[in-house]
Order: sequence, then C-alpha cells, then structure tokens
Amino acid sequence: MTEIPSIGILLFEDVELLDFAGPFEVFSVAHRLDPHAVAAPFTMADRAPVRTFNGMIVHPDFLCDEAPAPEILLVPGGRGVYRELENPSFLDFIRSRGDSADHVMSVCNGALFLAKTKLAENARLTTHHTDFDALRAIAGGNTVVEDARVTDNGKIITAAGVSAGIDMSLYFLQNKLGSAFAVSVARYLEYAWKPHGLAG
Amino acid sequence: MTEIPSIGILLFEDVELLDFAGPFEVFSVAHRLDPHAVAAPFTMADRAPVRTFNGMIVHPDFLCDEAPAPEILLVPGGRGVYRELENPSFLDFIRSRGDSADHVMSVCNGALFLAKTKLAENARLTTHHTDFDALRAIAGGNTVVEDARVTDNGKIITAAGVSAGIDMSLYFLQNKLGSAFAVSVARYLEYAWKPHGLAG
Repeated sequence: MTEIPSIGILLFEDVELLDFAGPFEVFSVAHRLDPHAVAAPFTMADRAPVRTFNGMIVHPDFLCDEAPAPEILLVPGGRGVYRELENPSFLDFIRSRGDSADHVMSVCNGALFLAKTKLAENARLTTHHTDFDALRAIAGGNTVVEDARVTDNGKIITAAGVSAGIDMSLYFLQNKLGSAFAVSVARYLEYAWKPHGLAG
Repeated sequence: MTEIPSIGILLFEDVELLDFAGPFEVFSVAHRLDPHAVAAPFTMADRAPVRTFNGMIVHPDFLCDEAPAPEILLVPGGRGVYRELENPSFLDFIRSRGDSADHVMSVCNGALFLAKTKLAENARLTTHHTDFDALRAIAGGNTVVEDARVTDNGKIITAAGVSAGIDMSLYFLQNKLGSAFAVSVARYLEYAWKPHGLAG
C-alpha cells in the first residue's frame, strides 16, 4: 500500500525557490528510499515555464488544467502570493484541489491562500515572520501562530518561513511512516532534525 | 564595491535539487537584502533544460560555453557526478572556470570534481557521508574530512551532504560581509544557523 500516494506542489510566478525545492527534495528522497510507500512528487503551474522570485526558471510537470488531483496539495509562498490572491481562477483551482485532497500543506506565506480560499477554518496557521500581519488581516476564524515551525490541524498543515517547509515535510513523513523513516530521510539530506510530537 | 561580484552555479543531468537550490536561495536572498554587496547568482549547464535526479526540470541561465567566468564557482553534487567524472570536456570546463575563480565551492559529492580536476590539492575536503570512500579513492594529496559540515581551505571550500550547502553559503557570507549580514539572511530563510569560526 502506498501511504503517500500523490503529492502535488503548486507553482506560480515569483514563488520562493526554497519554499518548494525543500519539500520537493524531502519527498523525492523519501520516494527513492521507499518507492512503494511514497509517490514521487509532481509540480503544476498555470504557465510553463515558471520564473521563481529568485530568478530560477523551472518547468512544471503539468499545467494546472491537466494536472491530476493530488491527495496531498502543497502550496509554497513567495512574493507572487500577493498577486495570485487577486486572481480568482487561481484561487478557484486551489479551493477545488484542496477540497478533494486529504491534506493541504502551506509553506511561508502560502498560508494566505489557505485563509483566503477558506480551505482553512478555525485552524492554527503559521507563516513567514514578515507576513503575520497580512495573514491576520484575512484569517477570519483562524488563529495566527507566531512561535511554531509547523502547525498541524489534521487536514490543514502549515509551515513557517522558507526552510521550515523541510521540517514540515519530515514531520509529515514521521506521522505517516514513522520516526525511523523520517530520520533516515533527514540523515540522507544531512539536515539537523529530530522527530517530535509537534514541531517546536 | 561589490564584495561578491559573481556566483556561477554549475548544473548537470541528475544533479541533486537541494544541493544547488539551497545555495541559490541563500545568495539570491543576500542579493535582495544588499544588491550592492552581492550579485544575483546564475546557473550554467552543458544542456538546457536540465533534469535533476529528483525529477525537477530547470532551465539554466547560460549554456557552459556562453557563461561568464564567475569569481565564485559552485559545484553541486548528485548521482550525475559519477557520469560526469568520465566526461573530459565537462572536467575541462570545471578546471578552466575553477582556475580563473577566486573561490571554488562544492556541495555533497561535487567535491569529487575538485579532486579529479586537481583544483583541490593538499586540501581538506568533505562530501556526502555515502561518498567518503569514493572521494578517498581519488583524493590524491587531499584529506577527506568525515566530521565537518564545511571545510575552508581559502580558495577551495567544501560542504557535506545536500542541506550543508546552505550552511556553507551562509558561512561564506559571514566571512565576506560579516556575521550580522549572514544572520539576517538566515533569519529571512528561518534557517537555524549561528556564525562560527569554522562550521562544525
């Protein structure tokens, strides 16, 4: 049985590189170490190629309209978030793919998408430390958490800024496949990480 | 004055994603925070696009033949290293760009390129923990260091596996631009890192 059957990472113009490259690295290494348990992650975007805010150009695996609906939807952040928050068709896509997913994860100010689309309601959300106020402004019934690296609300899971997406991905592997497996992935990445009840 | 005037990151088929995405993120954020002190990094490869070993497809900024000679050459690792170690024209390119650079940095088993091309001689080199033996086999007068996250030999600087490239890049910023600046970049990335004499 594949415990993590599909992981779709959503890209957009001016996404922050490490926000998605970190989780992509974690899940792709997990797939290498146990291809039966973890699917290879895929990327999708509303255009191809996509220019990150850091200037790197990436070709997504799928255009949004052609992408399979993932069981795990991961939404990174970046400067482009503020433009896409005003893009109704992009928000509709996130809402639709998020509704059908088992888990929706955000990194950095990708959390703003979860609040804006109301995929997150009455949840504890975190984000990049420069985006706390922006998230609070659209949080509705959600609570903005300023001192967590990861928040876990069951379906909705959020990471703090940039590199925290790596921790969130390892934490997710730990919950689904156990501490020993998550540690083996962190060890491969030579990333300083320890299993925990909730990332502190 | 630009303290870090050009940073060229060499890509190749089956490069490990986080090996180069980590340093690219660090230097691009440093450029954003102080564009006068740090140039935006660029990528170069012998083909376009490049498929990483993780399956992500990246479009390099330059083909090798057309790329400017960087003052800082950064060579990541990945499964593709073992194929490129048998590619004389690729090794010639690394040797030539490395000779003219002020600094040559490797991440992970990218260190094998530094040994093979003899850019590194009588240096302390580190690499991914699964590649210690492979590096030792071609190390010549170099010493393989198994317990360091970063080694600094002046011109030649090496990082251990995958995520250690982030630490090496922050360490380099610290040395060139001071601890406070490096800490501000790490803080932006929300990456747990402290300044040090030599990364331990």
